[in-house]
Amino acid sequence: MAVIITIMVLELKTPDGASLNALMKTTPVFLSYILSFIYVAIYWNNHHHFFFLVRRVNGLMLWANLHLLFWLSLIPFATSWMGGYHSSPIPTAIYGLALLMSALAWYLLQTVIIRTQGNESALARAIGHDLKGKASPPLYAAAILLAFVDTRISDAIYVLVALMWLIPDRRIEKMAQRS
Amino acid sequence: MAVIITIMVLELKTPDGASLNALMKTTPVFLSYILSFIYVAIYWNNHHHFFFLVRRVNGLMLWANLHLLFWLSLIPFATSWMGGYHSSPIPTAIYGLALLMSALAWYLLQTVIIRTQGNESALARAIGHDLKGKASPPLYAAAILLAFVDTRISDAIYVLVALMWLIPDRRIEKMAQRS
Amino acid sequence: MAVIITIMVLELKTPDGASLNALMKTTPVFLSYILSFIYVAIYWNNHHHFFFLVRRVNGLMLWANLHLLFWLSLIPFATSWMGGYHSSPIPTAIYGLALLMSALAWYLLQTVIIRTQGNESALARAIGHDLKGKASPPLYAAAILLAFVDTRISDAIYVLVALMWLIPDRRIEKMAQRS
Amino acid sequence: MAVIITIMVLELKTPDGASLNALMKTTPVFLSYILSFIYVAIYWNNHHHFFFLVRRVNGLMLWANLHLLFWLSLIPFATSWMGGYHSSPIPTAIYGLALLMSALAWYLLQTVIIRTQGNESALARAIGHDLKGKASPPLYAAAILLAFVDTRISDAIYVLVALMWLIPDRRIEKMAQRS
Repeated sequence: MAVIITIMVLELKTPDGASLNALMKTTPVFLSYILSFIYVAIYWNNHHHFFFLVRRVNGLMLWANLHLLFWLSLIPFATSWMGGYHSSPIPTAIYGLALLMSALAWYLLQTVIIRTQGNESALARAIGHDLKGKASPPLYAAAILLAFVDTRISDAIYVLVALMWLIPDRRIEKMAQRS
Repeated sequence: MAVIITIMVLELKTPDGASLNALMKTTPVFLSYILSFIYVAIYWNNHHHFFFLVRRVNGLMLWANLHLLFWLSLIPFATSWMGGYHSSPIPTAIYGLALLMSALAWYLLQTVIIRTQGNESALARAIGHDLKGKASPPLYAAAILLAFVDTRISDAIYVLVALMWLIPDRRIEKMAQRS
Repeated sequence: MAVIITIMVLELKTPDGASLNALMKTTPVFLSYILSFIYVAIYWNNHHHFFFLVRRVNGLMLWANLHLLFWLSLIPFATSWMGGYHSSPIPTAIYGLALLMSALAWYLLQTVIIRTQGNESALARAIGHDLKGKASPPLYAAAILLAFVDTRISDAIYVLVALMWLIPDRRIEKMAQRS
Repeated sequence: MAVIITIMVLELKTPDGASLNALMKTTPVFLSYILSFIYVAIYWNNHHHFFFLVRRVNGLMLWANLHLLFWLSLIPFATSWMGGYHSSPIPTAIYGLALLMSALAWYLLQTVIIRTQGNESALARAIGHDLKGKASPPLYAAAILLAFVDTRISDAIYVLVALMWLIPDRRIEKMAQRS
């Protein structure tokens, strides 16, 4: 995860000039950096809580984890592209695609871990219905399509989903504290 | 923290030419690199001492920590901008802003941890009055404003605060060695 | 390993323009990124399983490990070059050379570890005949030579060897679970 | 240390063109990369053996360690500059300066650790006379001065010192295995 943040910071180019105007031009890049930082932070946090409850790491989990890392690794690329062309539909849609695939990879990782730990494990009980996990992919899909109508609708959806996830998963955390 | 240092080193561009003159031109960039390296080192060191005393990491702490990381992640960007335009007020003020926000994020992290550990914890006693923590934000704020008068005053303040912090927090360390 | 992935992601340049056409031009770079990501993931995974069984790390192992890291560190360089000139024989052959040297370095690391642990160690028994490890170097060598006939043959071999390794080494994993 | 290697790999630019000739032009950059990789690997290895024997990390050690990291962090910068202008005296001398300061920082770290652990500690006995540590700084100093006579003499000294260190410090390792 630190890797992803490193790369995103590197995409933040120094403004051309020392004026406030030059700084202002970096605003869309900067806002997309903040959004992506929050997304990566959400994954980092949930990942931390999640692996806290995992007792045994096997090969399948490692692969599901690397698969998630692959899609997350595309976020800096998509962030920088969207930041550079913030009112163009394709970069905005590709950003949504990177988020959608990361969400599906996260769901897959979760499934692999629960299958290994058993349905009766602390983890399976902690997750339960997982409304947020189920609501995110359709929202990203909607944002991808709506990017071709107005990129501002997509941007609003990306911000909304981030806010929805910002509240850490108290259910898992509660289980972690009890176990 | 290693991430921040990585990025800062990457901003150090190779001089254009093999002469001593070409090397000299990189001096302001190099001096701002040294200053930022010291600041990141201070956070790294205090962070190390601090988390040594934390017994249980929860979601709120992780978020406060990521919040600190966000502001620290802007330091390389601000360093490189100030290094490139060292006598311009805006880059110098923005550098101060990155330091100010990092200091406030550090204060927030400290507060979150102490609240979780209890006022009677080893940590709360170790910190005590925390003069340095309280003196830094007003000094940064002064440097931000004074950048519009003369950037050399701001630079002097940044160096001064760094020197003030260079002396590691012996109080926390003493507690760490006793506990 | 995280280092290698970081660098590879950094080589993914943002397309010049917001059109689908601009995105399409990055396809060869993107495909070579996917291929190299899989290769690094394979090494990461096998490395994880391998070191799980190592009881004592000595100087020779550290050096064999750093030797492997050296060749792996050339993969991003070769990936980016091949991605930029995907139908040219020399970049394609150099990519194969980086994979070949990494495979030989892996073999060397394996040999050093087994010699230290003894032939009767769990590790030595777990590896056994190691068909995949023995088959890879000749395949890479063939790909290097065939790059001068048609780079597509080499590309096919690189994909094939990656698929062959994608199935994690169940033998080692089984031993790890038993021990 | 991984940080330093990451940065050095990033300085390896893809050749301009797909010909063998284009690849050949990167030779001096590549050779200086190999040399610096070996130097960083030596520090990594000795660092590993060293900290294995340290029982308690205090603030002074952390600072001495960060001080070493500072000088090591200048090696990629110096490597890339020397690689670009390999027959110019100043880049070659600056490279030697980065190595010299790193060597002195390593000596300082060693002194700080031994003072904390006591002269009778396993570490102090393991290091003993430390001929290599004492021989390196004068050799680097000689290389810096001789760069202004002929850079090839300096290059030869850098290679020589690296070879001298390549043999891992068996004395420390022996102590590590016994303790």
